[in-house]
Amino acid sequence: MIGYGFMGAAHSQGWRVAPRFFDLPRQPEMAVVVGRDADAVAAAAGAWGWQESATDWRAVVARDDIDVVDIVTPGDTHAVIAIAALEAGKHVLCEKPLANSVEEAQAMERAAAAAAERGVASMVGFTYRRVPAAAFARDLVAAGRLGQIRQVRAEYLQDWLMDAEAPLTWRLERERAGSGALGDIGAHAVDLAEFITGQRVTSVSGVMETLVDERPLLGKGVGLSGTAAAERGRVTVDDVAFFTGRLDSGALASFEASRFRTGRKNALRVEISGSQGALAFDLERLNELEFYDASQPALEQGFRRILVTEHDHPYLAPWWPPGHMLGYEHGFSHQVRDFVVAVDEGVAPRPSFADGLHVQRVLDAVERSSAAGSVWTSLEV
Amino acid sequence: MIGYGFMGAAHSQGWRVAPRFFDLPRQPEMAVVVGRDADAVAAAAGAWGWQESATDWRAVVARDDIDVVDIVTPGDTHAVIAIAALEAGKHVLCEKPLANSVEEAQAMERAAAAAAERGVASMVGFTYRRVPAAAFARDLVAAGRLGQIRQVRAEYLQDWLMDAEAPLTWRLERERAGSGALGDIGAHAVDLAEFITGQRVTSVSGVMETLVDERPLLGKGVGLSGTAAAERGRVTVDDVAFFTGRLDSGALASFEASRFRTGRKNALRVEISGSQGALAFDLERLNELEFYDASQPALEQGFRRILVTEHDHPYLAPWWPPGHMLGYEHGFSHQVRDFVVAVDEGVAPRPSFADGLHVQRVLDAVERSSAAGSVWTSLEV
Amino acid sequence: MIGYGFMGAAHSQGWRVAPRFFDLPRQPEMAVVVGRDADAVAAAAGAWGWQESATDWRAVVARDDIDVVDIVTPGDTHAVIAIAALEAGKHVLCEKPLANSVEEAQAMERAAAAAAERGVASMVGFTYRRVPAAAFARDLVAAGRLGQIRQVRAEYLQDWLMDAEAPLTWRLERERAGSGALGDIGAHAVDLAEFITGQRVTSVSGVMETLVDERPLLGKGVGLSGTAAAERGRVTVDDVAFFTGRLDSGALASFEASRFRTGRKNALRVEISGSQGALAFDLERLNELEFYDASQPALEQGFRRILVTEHDHPYLAPWWPPGHMLGYEHGFSHQVRDFVVAVDEGVAPRPSFADGLHVQRVLDAVERSSAAGSVWTSLEV
Amino acid sequence: MIGYGFMGAAHSQGWRVAPRFFDLPRQPEMAVVVGRDADAVAAAAGAWGWQESATDWRAVVARDDIDVVDIVTPGDTHAVIAIAALEAGKHVLCEKPLANSVEEAQAMERAAAAAAERGVASMVGFTYRRVPAAAFARDLVAAGRLGQIRQVRAEYLQDWLMDAEAPLTWRLERERAGSGALGDIGAHAVDLAEFITGQRVTSVSGVMETLVDERPLLGKGVGLSGTAAAERGRVTVDDVAFFTGRLDSGALASFEASRFRTGRKNALRVEISGSQGALAFDLERLNELEFYDASQPALEQGFRRILVTEHDHPYLAPWWPPGHMLGYEHGFSHQVRDFVVAVDEGVAPRPSFADGLHVQRVLDAVERSSAAGSVWTSLEV
Repeated sequence: MIGYGFMGAAHSQGWRVAPRFFDLPRQPEMAVVVGRDADAVAAAAGAWGWQESATDWRAVVARDDIDVVDIVTPGDTHAVIAIAALEAGKHVLCEKPLANSVEEAQAMERAAAAAAERGVASMVGFTYRRVPAAAFARDLVAAGRLGQIRQVRAEYLQDWLMDAEAPLTWRLERERAGSGALGDIGAHAVDLAEFITGQRVTSVSGVMETLVDERPLLGKGVGLSGTAAAERGRVTVDDVAFFTGRLDSGALASFEASRFRTGRKNALRVEISGSQGALAFDLERLNELEFYDASQPALEQGFRRILVTEHDHPYLAPWWPPGHMLGYEHGFSHQVRDFVVAVDEGVAPRPSFADGLHVQRVLDAVERSSAAGSVWTSLEV
Repeated sequence: MIGYGFMGAAHSQGWRVAPRFFDLPRQPEMAVVVGRDADAVAAAAGAWGWQESATDWRAVVARDDIDVVDIVTPGDTHAVIAIAALEAGKHVLCEKPLANSVEEAQAMERAAAAAAERGVASMVGFTYRRVPAAAFARDLVAAGRLGQIRQVRAEYLQDWLMDAEAPLTWRLERERAGSGALGDIGAHAVDLAEFITGQRVTSVSGVMETLVDERPLLGKGVGLSGTAAAERGRVTVDDVAFFTGRLDSGALASFEASRFRTGRKNALRVEISGSQGALAFDLERLNELEFYDASQPALEQGFRRILVTEHDHPYLAPWWPPGHMLGYEHGFSHQVRDFVVAVDEGVAPRPSFADGLHVQRVLDAVERSSAAGSVWTSLEV
Repeated sequence: MIGYGFMGAAHSQGWRVAPRFFDLPRQPEMAVVVGRDADAVAAAAGAWGWQESATDWRAVVARDDIDVVDIVTPGDTHAVIAIAALEAGKHVLCEKPLANSVEEAQAMERAAAAAAERGVASMVGFTYRRVPAAAFARDLVAAGRLGQIRQVRAEYLQDWLMDAEAPLTWRLERERAGSGALGDIGAHAVDLAEFITGQRVTSVSGVMETLVDERPLLGKGVGLSGTAAAERGRVTVDDVAFFTGRLDSGALASFEASRFRTGRKNALRVEISGSQGALAFDLERLNELEFYDASQPALEQGFRRILVTEHDHPYLAPWWPPGHMLGYEHGFSHQVRDFVVAVDEGVAPRPSFADGLHVQRVLDAVERSSAAGSVWTSLEV
Repeated sequence: MIGYGFMGAAHSQGWRVAPRFFDLPRQPEMAVVVGRDADAVAAAAGAWGWQESATDWRAVVARDDIDVVDIVTPGDTHAVIAIAALEAGKHVLCEKPLANSVEEAQAMERAAAAAAERGVASMVGFTYRRVPAAAFARDLVAAGRLGQIRQVRAEYLQDWLMDAEAPLTWRLERERAGSGALGDIGAHAVDLAEFITGQRVTSVSGVMETLVDERPLLGKGVGLSGTAAAERGRVTVDDVAFFTGRLDSGALASFEASRFRTGRKNALRVEISGSQGALAFDLERLNELEFYDASQPALEQGFRRILVTEHDHPYLAPWWPPGHMLGYEHGFSHQVRDFVVAVDEGVAPRPSFADGLHVQRVLDAVERSSAAGSVWTSLEV
């Protein structure tokens, strides 16, 4: 695993727990975690149960005893690491967004395609597809339970920047993070809406905005919780992004990504309206799916709150009895399970680097539309 | 009252009930209801308790014993009736949207301004301002409880057109209705968001779409519930409209109006995010207001569900004990109360025709933006 | 109408509004309202639209031009008025609880039975049966959609006494009110649970308690909102009552009535669990019914929130389009509608005085059980 | 760890994960898991990561290299194992309910008290105290935010027995399970209500009932999901239990435990009403706590939904950013954390065997009350 921030903890939990609950065809070993700060990465290795730590990712990627490279660094380093790993014949799991630019993502997708020819797998970490309720939503749509999709609303709402004095972390720097709310959380909204509907955005109109454009520089500390320093720096990414997209079926989808929606902590919400039904999902209530079945008798129709915790719901078989809830990090176990099974079976795992590239193109089109007065803008392909 | 459709029933209930609960300075008499079909309007007069019925609105507007003209006809006749009534010195209450075009609305606004000089009042019927929870939302914002408004989401979602065989009523004809979801329900979303925030939209980017563009012609029957005939006609208005607006403070607001949001029956929802708090209102739960107070201790913050049914909440004093719910038509009693009090006190009632004209300009800008590839478009003033 | 407190306002609204929306076979005239304080009752007559007011109920009951007597006085006077009215050949609508004791209720039921022989109707005012969602719940149970009823939970929760300094109104005096939370709101919980299930309580175990047993005497003022005086008096009724009942099918039901459930304003909630489904109703969201249909595919089961606002739902036909909410007082219009239709058709209206007597017997058994250490106690029949 | 059913999986996850997130003063080693079926327990050891498996618990308890014994067997074996382990000087963590009878629980409590003298710790596994929202509820009550507790409602609702053909597992046999809904889930409701309020039940009135008293014998299979055989056997435990308890402050609490509440999967719900506020918790939404603060301005009061996922909420510090949800099994990590810290610090962990004995006495009093016509019954002490 390259990187050891917040995502490193989540991925580690996935690698540790998945083999204890799922009957995996191959047993992952948590070999080595790589970071730039030798002491800090050694501490992370100890805390999270990795056998070794290292500071030179190129050396690790070259090792014969490494089969899989899991990339959890900021987006600006994804391309170089992933391409090197794929070229070294390692299966690659890369956090989202795939890269900070379409160009990088294209290069990664080409490397992934070439690697696939040699039996080397690659996957991008849109883990919310692995929340059981989201996977079940996909099943319902795929089974035709919603009829023809008429319109989509997807939003990812947080409020951790509402304090104008919150410090300037790397997530607020364009060079490191690529974009702000759009790339960090809007990417999830796009991927999840596309996953559940089975459709793709083909063109967009959007607007992005930075609501607080100067913040205190980050003092000592790590990750989201670093403390603020006296000096101030410029926020170079968006705080909010609103955009509308046309899906390949012609249906319209409306999107919102915001880190300023007061009181919303992690509200990735998708609502799909179809000619035969509707679905609503909210990550803040991730064990639930709301389903409206318009084929029911007219007087009995209503959004029903399905607890997606039954043994036969997606991913649920090895977990607890019905009504016993899963949490955020279970998606990482499910991701490991799917990745390991796909590698073992020689099937290309999804979401692929091509899927990740597509999302990058959506984000890019939103940025271009926003820069051009929100005019409708097609994806560059 | 000119007109006697669904809105006629609601306005009649307002005129009938308001004097029974509110201590009005003047007692309204339900004098005459006017419609084109003599038998039908006579039946409506009997059912709703009007003293007379008539078919010639011009004659009625000219009568000396008429003080107030309440206009509940489709939008294409608002201008001619309202202007005539104002010129005849009658106070006018006109249903929303004010008119079917900016030009008509401008003429109405000019007539209203001239009438105001002579002490004649005019008001447009955005009744949802008079839902106690919405009025209380306005109070909280006005008192600074949300701090600086950061962003707004307003949507009005219905699903009564999701059946592709639903008939072609006047609400689906551009000549009669002016526009579709945008003007019928989007207008409410704009007005309510502006009312609660105390801000105005200055420019927009939007897209409108007709999802089912041919429907069976309406057979016999009235209003929303008419039956379908064998022939088909063209839907000439929008089924959905998505738009983003910039408020005069610079904050962004995102809007959606749809008659295809499966399972949503009458979901006018407004969420306001500010630097000190947030509010969420949903007309499907109209006695409730969700309030997030970011000045509370960090560990205790959360959206609270306020039952807006206390004696001291707006409009509640004459109604029932706390926890006893109001319904849709109570807004019409509150509208009558406010209108009568304003007339009596000689204060210009709100929302004024100028407010209605402004909303019309927002709708117009959305239409122009949609026609121009969603490019950002300023209101014409 | 005899009495003119809070219930008088609600009944008046029922008599006024019902004929405007429902096509009644006979047109009620609001003839005379009766109270002890001549000035106050005259004011009420004016405010609520009664043609006359009077202070001698016996004289009014004797008048030939009176056909219906509507009793909305405190419970201690129900028996004498109702019996006199029935004997005078007047149809009687009597607020709940039917009386303050089983003995009185028995006398009333005998009078009602005798009157019925002469074609004179009587009904007790458990209006919550007429909330559309509750009536629809009854329809679902009656249609077998829940299968065999397995257990029931019914609670009526308020908090208006949580302030220990709230004044001692007549509702807290045993002589006037009969009992406290038990008779005032517990009676509704019993009636509604029995109505929806179609079953009756046959025996109970219960406990009642007064949490604050001394309060300031009521100063000047009316109804629930009177102000407090300096002297204190003894609360002689219960603040909370918990009881368990066995239904005639053998199923168990658990009940709670409380005026001390902080934050619950008017939460009459009934949940019915059956072998094929379940229902949950909450008066604080009175336009909604939650329905769990266990005959749906296992993975798709969930409580669905039905908006009971469709044209074909009970009582909804004359009201607004789907999604337009009704409020508390609509139940009184529905009550008037049902009462007038029953009188016209010569069918005995429900809930009958016999139904009211039965509820009184349940309350009585709870009181006896509570006094006897909560031991299981059968209804006296 | 003795036992390896459903609870064994949950406890194993606790032992595995706790040291990865919490900075424990001592590092637990997962030494040996014990069960009667050698193959099955060996498989469990492999799956869950225990170093060894064994079939003779007495031999394991006697081993010098064992410091802690974790008991997750059915209740009929708790006493013998726990007492032996404590006498052998092992710290003991024992699943709830502590035992199947008051007598056994008393013996265990005596053994625990004696062991405590020698520095040996014991704890009973009411893990729901360790759900952050429940722990935070306790904090709010302890800080006086609810004022004086006025009344309590606690219910644990499931529906897994609503199918009358569900098989007769050990949980339905009195010899193995002690009791049914009462002991299995009612015990949790009692413990959680007492934990949050800081009060204890002193007397009760209750009724228990078996709704389906004959079921197919269990065929092959394990745990909750075993398949049914053709023969039928007698259900010897309760399916539902309703009871009322008096707390030592004098306040009343009402309890319900049911495995027949259709549509409720794992609804452990506690609502506390106090003179200054109220709380509502529901295990089906375990990351949320509803809090009503009656000290807020009257017009702004409402139940607020607190996402108990902030860094400073109980147990949250080592987990994910705000809004990232925890699941069922996190409670087991928190339990391990608390147990290890208490052992290390030499502080008696809670809930103690004395706490477990107390809950057993409540259950026993409910059984005695139910057998005696629900008459009020004091706990035997």
